Amino acid sequence: MDFGYAPRVQTLRRQVQDFLEDYLLPHNLQWHRAVADGQFPLQLMEDLKALAKWDGLWNLFLPELPEDAPGTRLTNLEYAPLAEIMGRLPWAPEVFNCNAPDTGNMELLNLFATPEQRERWLMPLLEGEIRSCFAMSEPDVASSDATNIQTSIRRDGDAYVINGRKWFITGPAHPNCRLAIVLGVSDEGEDADPHARHSMVLVPMDAPGLEVVRNIPIMHHRAAEGHCELVFRDVRVPAGNLLGDEGQGFRMAQARLGPGRIHHCMRTIGQCEVALELMRERAMERRSFGKYLSEHANVADWIAHSRLEIDQARLLVLQAAWQIDEHGARAARTAVSGIKVVAAQLQTRIVDRAMQIFGAMGLTPDTPLSYLWTWGRAMRFLDGPDEVHLRVVAKDEFRRAREAPRGATSQYFTLEQDLRDTH
Amino acid sequence: MDFGYAPRVQTLRRQVQDFLEDYLLPHNLQWHRAVADGQFPLQLMEDLKALAKWDGLWNLFLPELPEDAPGTRLTNLEYAPLAEIMGRLPWAPEVFNCNAPDTGNMELLNLFATPEQRERWLMPLLEGEIRSCFAMSEPDVASSDATNIQTSIRRDGDAYVINGRKWFITGPAHPNCRLAIVLGVSDEGEDADPHARHSMVLVPMDAPGLEVVRNIPIMHHRAAEGHCELVFRDVRVPAGNLLGDEGQGFRMAQARLGPGRIHHCMRTIGQCEVALELMRERAMERRSFGKYLSEHANVADWIAHSRLEIDQARLLVLQAAWQIDEHGARAARTAVSGIKVVAAQLQTRIVDRAMQIFGAMGLTPDTPLSYLWTWGRAMRFLDGPDEVHLRVVAKDEFRRAREAPRGATSQYFTLEQDLRDTH
Amino acid sequence: MDFGYAPRVQTLRRQVQDFLEDYLLPHNLQWHRAVADGQFPLQLMEDLKALAKWDGLWNLFLPELPEDAPGTRLTNLEYAPLAEIMGRLPWAPEVFNCNAPDTGNMELLNLFATPEQRERWLMPLLEGEIRSCFAMSEPDVASSDATNIQTSIRRDGDAYVINGRKWFITGPAHPNCRLAIVLGVSDEGEDADPHARHSMVLVPMDAPGLEVVRNIPIMHHRAAEGHCELVFRDVRVPAGNLLGDEGQGFRMAQARLGPGRIHHCMRTIGQCEVALELMRERAMERRSFGKYLSEHANVADWIAHSRLEIDQARLLVLQAAWQIDEHGARAARTAVSGIKVVAAQLQTRIVDRAMQIFGAMGLTPDTPLSYLWTWGRAMRFLDGPDEVHLRVVAKDEFRRAREAPRGATSQYFTLEQDLRDTH
Amino acid sequence: MDFGYAPRVQTLRRQVQDFLEDYLLPHNLQWHRAVADGQFPLQLMEDLKALAKWDGLWNLFLPELPEDAPGTRLTNLEYAPLAEIMGRLPWAPEVFNCNAPDTGNMELLNLFATPEQRERWLMPLLEGEIRSCFAMSEPDVASSDATNIQTSIRRDGDAYVINGRKWFITGPAHPNCRLAIVLGVSDEGEDADPHARHSMVLVPMDAPGLEVVRNIPIMHHRAAEGHCELVFRDVRVPAGNLLGDEGQGFRMAQARLGPGRIHHCMRTIGQCEVALELMRERAMERRSFGKYLSEHANVADWIAHSRLEIDQARLLVLQAAWQIDEHGARAARTAVSGIKVVAAQLQTRIVDRAMQIFGAMGLTPDTPLSYLWTWGRAMRFLDGPDEVHLRVVAKDEFRRAREAPRGATSQYFTLEQDLRDTH
Repeated sequence: MDFGYAPRVQTLRRQVQDFLEDYLLPHNLQWHRAVADGQFPLQLMEDLKALAKWDGLWNLFLPELPEDAPGTRLTNLEYAPLAEIMGRLPWAPEVFNCNAPDTGNMELLNLFATPEQRERWLMPLLEGEIRSCFAMSEPDVASSDATNIQTSIRRDGDAYVINGRKWFITGPAHPNCRLAIVLGVSDEGEDADPHARHSMVLVPMDAPGLEVVRNIPIMHHRAAEGHCELVFRDVRVPAGNLLGDEGQGFRMAQARLGPGRIHHCMRTIGQCEVALELMRERAMERRSFGKYLSEHANVADWIAHSRLEIDQARLLVLQAAWQIDEHGARAARTAVSGIKVVAAQLQTRIVDRAMQIFGAMGLTPDTPLSYLWTWGRAMRFLDGPDEVHLRVVAKDEFRRAREAPRGATSQYFTLEQDLRDTH
Repeated sequence: MDFGYAPRVQTLRRQVQDFLEDYLLPHNLQWHRAVADGQFPLQLMEDLKALAKWDGLWNLFLPELPEDAPGTRLTNLEYAPLAEIMGRLPWAPEVFNCNAPDTGNMELLNLFATPEQRERWLMPLLEGEIRSCFAMSEPDVASSDATNIQTSIRRDGDAYVINGRKWFITGPAHPNCRLAIVLGVSDEGEDADPHARHSMVLVPMDAPGLEVVRNIPIMHHRAAEGHCELVFRDVRVPAGNLLGDEGQGFRMAQARLGPGRIHHCMRTIGQCEVALELMRERAMERRSFGKYLSEHANVADWIAHSRLEIDQARLLVLQAAWQIDEHGARAARTAVSGIKVVAAQLQTRIVDRAMQIFGAMGLTPDTPLSYLWTWGRAMRFLDGPDEVHLRVVAKDEFRRAREAPRGATSQYFTLEQDLRDTH
Repeated sequence: MDFGYAPRVQTLRRQVQDFLEDYLLPHNLQWHRAVADGQFPLQLMEDLKALAKWDGLWNLFLPELPEDAPGTRLTNLEYAPLAEIMGRLPWAPEVFNCNAPDTGNMELLNLFATPEQRERWLMPLLEGEIRSCFAMSEPDVASSDATNIQTSIRRDGDAYVINGRKWFITGPAHPNCRLAIVLGVSDEGEDADPHARHSMVLVPMDAPGLEVVRNIPIMHHRAAEGHCELVFRDVRVPAGNLLGDEGQGFRMAQARLGPGRIHHCMRTIGQCEVALELMRERAMERRSFGKYLSEHANVADWIAHSRLEIDQARLLVLQAAWQIDEHGARAARTAVSGIKVVAAQLQTRIVDRAMQIFGAMGLTPDTPLSYLWTWGRAMRFLDGPDEVHLRVVAKDEFRRAREAPRGATSQYFTLEQDLRDTH
Repeated sequence: MDFGYAPRVQTLRRQVQDFLEDYLLPHNLQWHRAVADGQFPLQLMEDLKALAKWDGLWNLFLPELPEDAPGTRLTNLEYAPLAEIMGRLPWAPEVFNCNAPDTGNMELLNLFATPEQRERWLMPLLEGEIRSCFAMSEPDVASSDATNIQTSIRRDGDAYVINGRKWFITGPAHPNCRLAIVLGVSDEGEDADPHARHSMVLVPMDAPGLEVVRNIPIMHHRAAEGHCELVFRDVRVPAGNLLGDEGQGFRMAQARLGPGRIHHCMRTIGQCEVALELMRERAMERRSFGKYLSEHANVADWIAHSRLEIDQARLLVLQAAWQIDEHGARAARTAVSGIKVVAAQLQTRIVDRAMQIFGAMGLTPDTPLSYLWTWGRAMRFLDGPDEVHLRVVAKDEFRRAREAPRGATSQYFTLEQDLRDTH
C-alpha cells in the first residue's frame, strides 16, 4: 500500500499542469467569448491539439493503444491523476484527445472494429481528425435501464435501417463530428433475451434521414459541442457498419463504461478543486459584518468539509482505477458504480457551497461555478442515475451477506439469543 | 501508488481476525454478562492476553518499541488495518495490549520517561501488567482548547502538589489501573506563554488525595474501564515524577495524539463494518409490507451509502497513517484532524441507519448498536470536538490559498474582469 | 385563519407553566435521585397529583370526558399547547393525569368499555388511582405492520386464554400499574380477513401466567415506569374482559392513535424548546478561541435552524390537532402520520446540536440532553417507524395525483409535448 | 387559533385559480415561445391585465391602497394564499399587478412620495401602465450588509448627480419599465452614521447617463423582464426626485421588505407545489426495474418529505403574515428573516428531488423545473443571503436567553450543580 504518485506520474502531472497554465488558461476568455457568440473556436482547438500532440500529451487514456497509433500508454491508475488536471478546464480534455465520448468510442472501436472500420473511423479519431458521438439515451424510456432502448435497427438486404429518437447525445454540435455509434434493438422477437436483443451500428453524421433536432440546453446552458436530440428516419447504412456481433450491443455498452467513468469522476475531482480554490480565495477577500468571510465559522466549516469530501472521493476513484488495472473492468463494476454516485453528488454539493460564498455573482456566467454545478447535476443522470448505481452497490452488499457464514454477525450480539427466546 | 495490503499485513490481518473469531467472540456474551453485573472479567482478560502475547499479537502499535520490550514493530500504515479488526469488538484491543489510553501513554513514556520512570511504569505497561489513564479534560473549561486547562501542579520543595478536577478520564475503573499521567499548569505567572505553562506528572492511582468521584455514564452507558471524574486535593508526588521538562506539557500532549487518532479512527471503521454487516443481514431476514426490508429501495440506499462512506473514510485514514510514516506526525497534523472529524461523524451516521433497520431492538442492549452509536457520539468530542478539527482543516486551506500565485484562480473566470469593470 | 391562542388557552398555559415552575421543577433533582436509586418516587407523585387535581389541571386531554369524571374538557387544539408545556419535564404529564399510555387507554375504554369495565378500570384511571399499559408490540414480527401481531387470544369456555410475548410495553414498572390492554389474534383461521382477526382483552397485571421479564434499557436508559418485555403463558381472563367486539382489535388500535400522537408530538416540541434554551444559554456562557460560542457563526446557525424547525413543526402539529377537532381522527390520518415523522426526526436533530454545544457534558446524565435524544430516537419507532408514516404520506400524494384532472400538470410544461414528439 | 381560510379568502382563491387555469395556462406555451425568441409578449400581457382588472383581481397585495386607486384591499394574511397561486406560473403575478419589484416600489411610494411623485409614478404603477425597478445591489460590495452600498448621490444645485454600478436589478428589460428607485450614499462624511448616510432618488429609465449594461443570465437563464447590470454616469435628476428625506434611504429600504418577502415566500410555496405535482405524476407514469417509480420507496420518501416540508413552510409564512398584520412589519422582522431562509432552501431542495425523478428531462427547458431551481437558488441571495437571515434569527434567540430569568434552564438539569462542584 502506497499513497504516493509514481515518478512517471508526477512528471506527467507537472507537464499537463504546465501545459494547461501556459497554453490553455491564457485563451480561456477567448474560448468563452467565441462560444457565447455561438461559434466553436475550431482554429484555436486545432492549434492547441497540434501542440499537445507534439509534446507527447496525446491519447493518454488508452492502455491498449494500437501499435500504429500516436499516444502515451498509461494504465488507468496512471492516467486518472492527469484526468483530474484536465477536468479543471471544461474544454481542456479535447486538446489532449482525451474527451468524452470520443475516448469511450475509441475504446469500443479498438475492441470490436473490423479492419475497415478501424481504418475509416478509429485511426482518424486517434489522430484527432474527426469527432464522434454515442447515441444511446432515448426520451421515451427510463434510460436507467438500457434494456428499455427502443430505437430499431432492422436488417434489410445488405443494409441496416435505423428508426428512432435519441437525446442527450454529446458531440453532434462539434464542427468535426462525423460518426454516431448507435445502440438499438435488432431483434424485436417477443422471446428475445432482453440482454441479447441490441446491436450497435456506425452511422455517418451526414447519413440521409439523420436529423439533429436541437442542441438541448441543460439548466439553460447550451454546450459548444452539444447535448443533442437526434431523429433517425429510415437511415440506411451498409451491413458492414455493424459494430461487433448482432445482439451484443447491450454487453458492448456495458463494457464501454468502466474506464470512462474513472475519467469522468477524476475530471469531477478537478472541477471540485477549482471550486474549492475559488471559494477559499473569495472567502479571504470579501468582508461582511466587520470580518472576512473566512473568519465566519460557518464559511470555514464549508471549506473544511469540502476538502475532506474531495480527498475521500479522489481516493475512492483512484482505488477503482487500480481495481480495473489489477482485476479488469468487470471485477470493478461495483466500485465503478460507487464512484459514479459519489462524484456526481460531490460536485453539486461542493459547487453549491462555492456559489453561496460568491453570492449573486456565483450564479452568473462571470465565474465557472454555474456551469460546474450544472454539469455536476447532469452527471447525476448521465450513464445512469444515482439510484441505479446505489442499487448496484447495495446488491453487492447483499451478496456479501449471503456469502458470509450463517450467524457470523450474531456473535456480536450482547444478549444470548436463546436467553431472550426462552425466558 | 498501490491500494493492496502488503503480504505481511495480509498475514497479520488473517491472524488477528482468526484470533478474534476463535478466542474472543466465543466469550463475548460472558464478557457482557460480567460487565452487566458490575464486574470486570479480569481472569478472562488475563488468559486471553497471555494467549495473544504467546501468538506474537502484542504491542502491534508502536514502531519504536524499546529493544527489551515484547512486541511486533509495525508502521502506522501496517498497524492501521489491524486496529480496524480489533475495533470490531470493543473489548478486543486490550487483549493485544493495544488499547487507549495505554497506547498513547506508552508512546509518551517511551519518548520522555527517565530510566527510573521507564522501569517503574513503561515496562509493566508494555508487559500488560498494569493499566494507566491520561488526565487532561476538565469540567469547567472548554476542553477544545488545551491551553485552558486549570489544574495546578505546584512545586513545593522536592515534590509537586496537584489540585484540580478532571473528567472523562478513561481507565480508572479498570482493576489494574495504577498510573495517572496528569496535565496541569505549573507556571501560573500572568506573563507565561500560554503554550509553555503546562507540565505533566506521573501520579500513582493510590496517591493520597486522589479520589475517583464517579464513573460517568455516557448516554447512560457506564464503561467497564470507566470514563471517570477525578479530584486531586493536595496530591503530593516526588519531583522525580515530572515527565519531560516543566512547561512542555502542552507540546507533549500534542505530540501524543497523532498515531492514537489513527488507531481510534481505524477502530471506528471496524465498528462501522460490524454495523453494516448487522444491518444488511437484518434487512435480508425481516419483512414488512410483503417484502424483505432489503427490497425496499430506501433501506437499500442506506446500505449502499454506508458502504461508500466507510470505504472513503478508511482510505482517508490509511492515507493519514502513510503520511505519518513518511513525513512525521507534525507534518500530518491537518490530515489527522481531518480523519478525526470524518470518522466520528461517520460512526453515528452509519449506526443510526443500522438502528433504524433493526427497529426498537436496535436501541436495546441486546445488540451492540446502542453502544456503538454512543461511542461514536462521544468520539465527536474526545480529543477535541469536530469544530476544532474543522477549524484546523480550514486554516490549512487558507494557508494554501495564501501561498498560491496571486490571481491564479481568476484565470478560471469566464468573463474578463476588466471587461466587467470598464463597460 | 388565526395564529393566536384563544384566551382560555392562554390562561391555562400560564397556569400549567406556573404549576410546573412552582411545584415540579423544585423537586426535579429529588425525582432523579430517587429514580437513580431504583425507586419510583410515589409519594411525591401522589402529592403533586392531588394538588393538580385540586387546581383543576386534571385530565385535560379528553374532549368527551364522561360526565361523572373529574377533568377539564378541552379540544385537541386547546390541549395541544398544554401538552407542549408538560413535555418540558418528562415526569410532568403524570402529575396532570395526562401521560401515555394511560391517556390512550382511557380514550379506548371511554369508547368501548362495558359499564362493568368502565366501573372497574376507567373510573380509577380517570381518578389517577391506578395506571395501565397497552401491550401491542412483539419482538418477533415487524411492528410496523400491526396485522403481523401473533399473540394468541383463544376463547375457551367462558374465558379467554392468552399466549405470547410483548416488548417495549410502557408502564409495567410503575408501582400502581394494574391493567394491561392486550392486542392479539382471536381468529387464526387461514381465510380470516387480516384486518378482522384481532381482539383486545383486559388483563389484570397480577393474572397468573403474566410475567414482566425485564425493564428494557433504551440506549442504556432504564425508564422509571418501564419499557418492559412481558410474557403471557396460558393467562386466563373471564370472557367479560373482552374489550369491544371480537375481530375489532386492529380497528380499535388504529382509532386509539390520533390524539395520542398529537400529545406525543407536542411534548416533543416542549422538549425541543428546553434543548434550545439549554443550548443558547450554554453558547452565551462558554468561550473558545477567544470568543463566546454564540459568536461562532456555525453555532449560531445551529441555533437559528433549531428555532425555525421547531416553529414549523409546532404549526404542523397544531394544524393536525385542528383537523382532528374539525373533521375527526379518521380524516386527519395522513396529517397524524406526517407529524409523527416530523416530530421524531426533529427531536434527535435539535438535541444532537445541543449536545455538540455542551461538549462532553451533553452526554452525561447531568443534563437532560442524553435522555431527550434517547427518547427522540425511540419515538422514531414507537407507534410505527418513520418509514411507515412516510409511506402513508406518499400514498396520499399519489391519491391526490390520481384525482387531479388528467394532464393538469402538463400545462405547466414549457415545451409543447406534440412539438417535441412530432419534430 | 384557526387553520381555515376565511370565506372571502376561499372565494378569492377559487377566482384566482380559475383565472390562472382559464386564461393564463392556455397561453403558457405562447409565452415561453415568445420569450425564447427574445420577445416580451407585451400584447398578451396587456390583454390579460385588462381582464384581471375588470375581474377585480388587481392590486391585491396592498392593504393601504390609496383611495383613488383601483384594487382590492387585502391584509397580508388574506393576500398570502393568493400569492401562492400566482406563484405557480412565473409570469402570472404581473397579470394581477402583483409582481416584484413593482409591489415593493408601490408600497414605498405610497408611504413616502410627494403629491407630484404620486401623480407621476405611483398612479401609473397602480394602473399597471408602467413598470419600475429598484436599484440597490452592487457588484463590488457584500450586498448582505446594505450599509456597504457605495453608489453616490451628490447634491449639486437643485439636482442630484448619481454615479455608480448596480446589478441584479430586476425589471429593466421589461418594455414598459420607466422608473428606477436608486439607493445610494448622499452623505460621504467620515463621521456619518452608517445607517443615516443613504438616500433614495427617483430616476427615469431614459435619463442620460443611465445605461443598461446587460441582462445577466442566472444559471444561464436570461429573464424576460431582466436581472440587469446598470451603470449610472453623472446621471442628473431634479432635487424634487428625492424620495422621502435625505439620509433615510437605509431605513426606507428596510421598511420596504416585510410584505414583499411574504409574497416571495408564498410564491415559492406555489412553485414547490407545482414541482411536487409534477414529480408525483411522473412517478406514477414512469417505470424502472419492473415497477413504477412511485413504488420505489426512496422515490416515495422524497415525495412524502416534500409534502411535509412544504406544509410546514407554508404555515410559517402565513404566521409571519399574521404577525405583520397584527403587530406591524417591524415586530415581525425576525419572523420575516426566518421565512426567507426556510422558503429559499425549501425550493432548491424540493425541485432538486423533482429533477431527479424526471431524469435528464428535468434539466431541459421542456419542463419548468430547471427555471424553478434556478429561481430558488437565486432566492438564497436576493434580499440578503441565508446566512444574514440566520444571523437575525440567532440574535433573537440570544436576546430571549438574556431576558429569561437567570438560571431558569438549570432547573432542568438532573444533577445538582453544587453536588457536582463540592463532591
